[in-house]
Amino acid sequence: MVLELRVPNGPHQTDIASLLKLYPVFLSYILSFIYVGIYWNNHHHTMQAAESVNGTILWANMHLLFWLSLVPFVTGWMGENDFARWPVTCYGFVLIMNAIAYGLLILALVRHHGKDSLLGSAIGKDWKGNISILIYAIAIAVSWLNSTISFILYILVACIWFIPDRRIERKLVNEEPPCKNEVKS
Amino acid sequence: MVLELRVPNGPHQTDIASLLKLYPVFLSYILSFIYVGIYWNNHHHTMQAAESVNGTILWANMHLLFWLSLVPFVTGWMGENDFARWPVTCYGFVLIMNAIAYGLLILALVRHHGKDSLLGSAIGKDWKGNISILIYAIAIAVSWLNSTISFILYILVACIWFIPDRRIERKLVNEEPPCKNEVKS
Amino acid sequence: MVLELRVPNGPHQTDIASLLKLYPVFLSYILSFIYVGIYWNNHHHTMQAAESVNGTILWANMHLLFWLSLVPFVTGWMGENDFARWPVTCYGFVLIMNAIAYGLLILALVRHHGKDSLLGSAIGKDWKGNISILIYAIAIAVSWLNSTISFILYILVACIWFIPDRRIERKLVNEEPPCKNEVKS
Amino acid sequence: MVLELRVPNGPHQTDIASLLKLYPVFLSYILSFIYVGIYWNNHHHTMQAAESVNGTILWANMHLLFWLSLVPFVTGWMGENDFARWPVTCYGFVLIMNAIAYGLLILALVRHHGKDSLLGSAIGKDWKGNISILIYAIAIAVSWLNSTISFILYILVACIWFIPDRRIERKLVNEEPPCKNEVKS
Repeated sequence: MVLELRVPNGPHQTDIASLLKLYPVFLSYILSFIYVGIYWNNHHHTMQAAESVNGTILWANMHLLFWLSLVPFVTGWMGENDFARWPVTCYGFVLIMNAIAYGLLILALVRHHGKDSLLGSAIGKDWKGNISILIYAIAIAVSWLNSTISFILYILVACIWFIPDRRIERKLVNEEPPCKNEVKS
Repeated sequence: MVLELRVPNGPHQTDIASLLKLYPVFLSYILSFIYVGIYWNNHHHTMQAAESVNGTILWANMHLLFWLSLVPFVTGWMGENDFARWPVTCYGFVLIMNAIAYGLLILALVRHHGKDSLLGSAIGKDWKGNISILIYAIAIAVSWLNSTISFILYILVACIWFIPDRRIERKLVNEEPPCKNEVKS
Repeated sequence: MVLELRVPNGPHQTDIASLLKLYPVFLSYILSFIYVGIYWNNHHHTMQAAESVNGTILWANMHLLFWLSLVPFVTGWMGENDFARWPVTCYGFVLIMNAIAYGLLILALVRHHGKDSLLGSAIGKDWKGNISILIYAIAIAVSWLNSTISFILYILVACIWFIPDRRIERKLVNEEPPCKNEVKS
Repeated sequence: MVLELRVPNGPHQTDIASLLKLYPVFLSYILSFIYVGIYWNNHHHTMQAAESVNGTILWANMHLLFWLSLVPFVTGWMGENDFARWPVTCYGFVLIMNAIAYGLLILALVRHHGKDSLLGSAIGKDWKGNISILIYAIAIAVSWLNSTISFILYILVACIWFIPDRRIERKLVNEEPPCKNEVKS
């Protein structure tokens, strides 16, 4: 894994209550682990479909890594402060920047390979990227009213992305989109 | 190594007594290092036998990494608290979840490759995985009476797993199970 | 990424003012991230052009890694002390040593492959390396008068290097320098 | 790099005196970095010469990684305590265990490939490994009289190992030992 989340330190006492008090830390850690896992899995699938890279792609990748590298920072800040308003807002900001950076990486890859390439046709319209940026924006706005709703919205986006980009996976297996018409004739 | 255990900080004094007082930290560190090593070695052998991966395998792998990533946390908590009851229980819980996650990864791999594949036949019945989950469960129960016995049980499981999955290793070398009958005829 | 920058810990308070007070930490982190990214990208391009390595190259690489490994140290020292004189000077010193170490690595690679090789002709005269060492030297001298100007000079060098070594990239793609004269005849 | 040394935190003050006071930390860091670099380089050369691995080799490798993983611990303890007697002794103990672990890895590799293999003949008699274990033992004994001499002996061993295993490197290039007699005839 490119990015290693720092596991929170254990409590100084040995009873279970002191561990359970850390529940916001664990919730934040689990959500961030899933997010990093999603990016890592989709990255794996997308990069497998890439035939070559250029300077722009390397920089788009570095840009994504930058925002991914800030995930542990905001995760810790949010978890250790019981989902306070500002930390939850900043967490959303880092997530939205990650989504934008991933979108830009995809764009650079598609531009380099051409729209008619395997990768270009496999990705098609990136509705998941656009809808998650929208939900993040709503979550950030909502964090001023109720940060719990924001956190639930972050979980919602994770659920949307949970399934890896099957479009690419399928394409990589078939090397052709499944066309029922062709099977008939 | 995918997962790096954090080495405990040295004592602030320079005499040997202050180092020896850290023995629970070192014992925990050594046991966890062996566990992570066992997972890494078996993972290496199993993944070598895998011919391709799909989304389910990637997620099963991520799930295993999640529980492996909690090993340093419980190792530190257990070591710094002199094998107190709750930390020892939690250490066992993380180990049992690792064992289950590894079992699920194996299951996903076998399902993807088919039971008759090299990997499917090489793994066969995963008795080691089942017996270690059983011992972990006993160790967790026992931790309420005597946490030292639990720690010894954790060491016992490590001994069972110490030998890498020779079944896979042998199969990969021979590409056929050694059948004495076949040699005769 | 070979070298992982340590993300600064979040503030202990949850208001935005406590986060904004950390701006020197973030500015330093961003600049260092870009620097490490530049080295990583150029390293990637250069190593792709290398056909084989020898002991000298491995040691030159290790030497570069040593100075890169000190980047987080001086980044933290500079960021946490509001761009004080000595930390800014030391940051420049580590950057200048990185530039020299990278130059030595290039030299070892060119010597091993021969000046007429793809890599040798692709690199040619390393003016970017020389000019950045010059600017670093000026920045270190200026840090005694005004450390803000030094920081701006560090950003300037980053801008010069921002574009990956297109010479190598282009050569790797064409395997020949684009000569318009040749196309004519 | 498999093992990442933790860079010491910067001083809390911004003057150069507070940085220079950290000289034992830096000296220890530099020596350990060279040691880890030596192991990494030789490991690279040796593993390149290995045609296949078995379970014993994987475990010998894990055993070496265990002792390498303790290097940062003893480095920090020694550096932060101004080369006090016990930390210097323990540093030597970890180095001697690393040397033994590396010897065992080489042994497992030679046994697996056969003495007449490229790797077996390239390594031959491991005099460097034996002499460094001897010097480490002397350094540990001397640390009770004068820990500075021990530190100089550790530097001496690093110098002996500094040159990567040219025997293997040469063999890998020529695939035959250079025999002047053969050239004549």
